[in-house]
Amino acid sequence: MTTFKATLAYDGTGLIGWQRQASGASIQGLIEAVLEELEGRPVTVHGAGRTDAGVHALGQVASFALERDITPRVLRQAMNAHLPGTIRVMHVAAMHPGFHARFDARTKTYRYRIWYSDVMNPFERAYALHVIGPLNVDAMSAAARALEGRHDFAAFQATGGTVTDTEREVISCRLVARNRLLLLEITGTGFLRHMVRAIVGSLIEIGRGRRDAAWLAALLASRDRTQAGPTVPAHGLFLVAVDYGDASLAKGS
Amino acid sequence: MTTFKATLAYDGTGLIGWQRQASGASIQGLIEAVLEELEGRPVTVHGAGRTDAGVHALGQVASFALERDITPRVLRQAMNAHLPGTIRVMHVAAMHPGFHARFDARTKTYRYRIWYSDVMNPFERAYALHVIGPLNVDAMSAAARALEGRHDFAAFQATGGTVTDTEREVISCRLVARNRLLLLEITGTGFLRHMVRAIVGSLIEIGRGRRDAAWLAALLASRDRTQAGPTVPAHGLFLVAVDYGDASLAKGS
Repeated sequence: MTTFKATLAYDGTGLIGWQRQASGASIQGLIEAVLEELEGRPVTVHGAGRTDAGVHALGQVASFALERDITPRVLRQAMNAHLPGTIRVMHVAAMHPGFHARFDARTKTYRYRIWYSDVMNPFERAYALHVIGPLNVDAMSAAARALEGRHDFAAFQATGGTVTDTEREVISCRLVARNRLLLLEITGTGFLRHMVRAIVGSLIEIGRGRRDAAWLAALLASRDRTQAGPTVPAHGLFLVAVDYGDASLAKGS
Repeated sequence: MTTFKATLAYDGTGLIGWQRQASGASIQGLIEAVLEELEGRPVTVHGAGRTDAGVHALGQVASFALERDITPRVLRQAMNAHLPGTIRVMHVAAMHPGFHARFDARTKTYRYRIWYSDVMNPFERAYALHVIGPLNVDAMSAAARALEGRHDFAAFQATGGTVTDTEREVISCRLVARNRLLLLEITGTGFLRHMVRAIVGSLIEIGRGRRDAAWLAALLASRDRTQAGPTVPAHGLFLVAVDYGDASLAKGS
């Protein structure tokens, strides 16, 4: 058996998200189907981040073990030959046995993209949220940085979330303005479901001047999801990269 | 009557191109339908470049005249409210009577995008040609610059083209490498049908080492379409901008 680490990019438009479900095209399901074909038996694939329906990835990481003797390069070619063009395997590496894409991940980086202009860019409509009208970008930027550190993010988890330990460490949370694009770049050791999208919704409330920095601090302290800004749509969210520290040292590639 | 100049961006995926035809969704046809609804009578729209099926635009320009009393800003909003999200009116200006998007254009700039890597970027699949394997980018770059100037481009026109005057002036023809993207940026006073795509196909032949600079010079001199490289697909092509010199001075906006 060889354990592989595959780095994936995908356009989440029209997909039901990472996780295999009873019906619909999931990234996990499509990859497992291709590997089952290669291996001649079912293969379980673990993903670093369980991206929701419509969320995109530039550097999702998946792990799985194969009995078949195959080089990482040929495996990458075989997977790309059978996967739809919206999902691409960018890189494959052979890892030490037991490498696990989710459990071994040290940090993950997400990006949320906002197209901030009167008229939507037609090439961004599936990859950015369209926001019209004045935004106080400096206030949003300061609020983003205030989220850095270890906090209880219960106020930012998906409604009905059942996770009990809602403390997470955000290593970096920065708003970057690039012409008409506003990008929230957030790196953390872990994320609650919908956490990035609820943070962006809250930052937009601040940008609109409806809320201020004190509200954000009170919101974190409240641990109350009903107090946060709306969860922004999935199509602006990208899983950018997963970092494994030393655990990412491949056996070879 | 007021003559308007509208600057348009569109994702050409799934559209039959600029020009109205008997069936299928054309950009011209969709815009004329929206303006007829506004004006209560048929309106003819002229485009600066008659982009082919699948070609995109960042700065296509259209002209038309309306009797209805409407400000450029309200007209832009009304058009965007009724056009599909793949076509956006970025700007509208009121012009001097008789302004014509095609006849008054001084130069047009096109960009052809190539994703040059073993694995296609899933976010580029509808916006760039995928090219694998070694390319001599320096040779392509030198060949591109050799096309600058006034030449007879008959060898680069669409097969079956019926234009008799095939001399055109290319003001600038540059290849730009940006990580895995190769961009051909070409500005000229006029273009033959498929000219940019035939130029790119010929530059790729040179990049692959199948042809050299002397071949390109002989190709231009031959005026023979059957000698040029293949016409590359439409989905990598963008109409970037149209320049009007002084004629672009709007009456107001």
